[in-house]
Amino acid sequence: MTPNFGKNILITGSSRGIGFGMVEYLAKHSNAQYIFATCRNLETAKALKELSKLYLSIKIVQLDIEDDNSIEKARNEIQAILEDQPLNMLVNNAGLDLTGGTILGEKPNRTNLNRQFDINTTSTIIVTDAFLPLLLKAAKNGEKAMIVNMSSALGSITNAWRAPENDTGRFWYAYNMSKAALNMYTRVLNRYHENKGLIVVSIHPGRVKTDMGGPIADITTEESVQAMIDSLSKLATKDSGRCIDRFGKDIPF
Amino acid sequence: MTPNFGKNILITGSSRGIGFGMVEYLAKHSNAQYIFATCRNLETAKALKELSKLYLSIKIVQLDIEDDNSIEKARNEIQAILEDQPLNMLVNNAGLDLTGGTILGEKPNRTNLNRQFDINTTSTIIVTDAFLPLLLKAAKNGEKAMIVNMSSALGSITNAWRAPENDTGRFWYAYNMSKAALNMYTRVLNRYHENKGLIVVSIHPGRVKTDMGGPIADITTEESVQAMIDSLSKLATKDSGRCIDRFGKDIPF
Repeated sequence: MTPNFGKNILITGSSRGIGFGMVEYLAKHSNAQYIFATCRNLETAKALKELSKLYLSIKIVQLDIEDDNSIEKARNEIQAILEDQPLNMLVNNAGLDLTGGTILGEKPNRTNLNRQFDINTTSTIIVTDAFLPLLLKAAKNGEKAMIVNMSSALGSITNAWRAPENDTGRFWYAYNMSKAALNMYTRVLNRYHENKGLIVVSIHPGRVKTDMGGPIADITTEESVQAMIDSLSKLATKDSGRCIDRFGKDIPF
Repeated sequence: MTPNFGKNILITGSSRGIGFGMVEYLAKHSNAQYIFATCRNLETAKALKELSKLYLSIKIVQLDIEDDNSIEKARNEIQAILEDQPLNMLVNNAGLDLTGGTILGEKPNRTNLNRQFDINTTSTIIVTDAFLPLLLKAAKNGEKAMIVNMSSALGSITNAWRAPENDTGRFWYAYNMSKAALNMYTRVLNRYHENKGLIVVSIHPGRVKTDMGGPIADITTEESVQAMIDSLSKLATKDSGRCIDRFGKDIPF
């Protein structure tokens, strides 16, 4: 089945990992006109540049989610390409797990704890706010309008996840907290824009063999991306505000 | 019933509101030897100074939760008074709701969003970490050892709370997120220290007529404090990791 998320898609953090995987998958399999693939550093985005030579739909855009000016500039660049067209899908994928005073048992480090929130939570809010008018325009037209926040099962307060004993057995609590806070954003944003046709969800990609997930992770990027795209393509407005795993199953808050 | 939280209690943000109310209530009604009442600004803590003249158990200590040096200094001061005694209860009450780019519908403000996390979440972590050895000492002695994180029903991701329509009808989402993240901390801290006799809980004080709650709030500080102390005094180690309202009822994550 061809995944249909509308004509214009934006994915942050696209130079590697899950973001890159989503850009590649959608370029191959969807009918998108434009896939705006953003990354912090254009210089090092070699694989993305190669990919963009194969698929004309891919437009690489510089966007550092920690920098308000960069967000503004990227928005203007994308808006200029779109002209009066709306944006149909925003995937807030860019994120990090910081180390250093962010794991239980270590002396907590204020700077790193705060930066974990800045990257994974606050930055997502600011990026979303910048592109929200373009998404609401799509919703108003009766087109697909979807915001996907790349969250994590680690954001489940109910589960209060720790790394498996055969790994480190540790609580990466700063990461957990940043994703729980992000899930709250998904929920309030959905409620704020209820009945406008906007779909806002948090999704857990699974434990993926990326730089972040590490080699002991469960699945490949391709498996994760394929499952997520499949699940996301089945969502309707009634699903907005949900926090799901890659198979579309609810994760407890 | 005399509430018994052990001999030595520490309450942050004690110069006004709920913190002040708890200090007053426990000074009157408990058998505490020391109630360390911390506040950011000693100069303006007039009511607390007056109160401390009536109850010798009250020890006022300067502590700015946003300042690592201040936390360290307060810990040393309290440790010097306690000598080799442990601390039995830590109430992480200090907190704020920031305004300016922190409510849905406003343009988000990165500085204020991040500071909301710094105050309500990161600072609680750093304060807790500073006093944890003293609390674990109490637990090891078989004494009461309790950490109370002043959270909020607004931290419930399930409910994604908005202000009532007869108030502003707004989503104070930065505050909500900071408290959801704090609830995650309660959960991971509990799991990390499982089976050591430590009780860690989040509590929602109700909507209290303080500077923060405003005049349309439901209950007085006294009503809130009395209900919370009553509920907290009934908790056992099996309750650790819970997020409760002032009556001891679970709030959904």
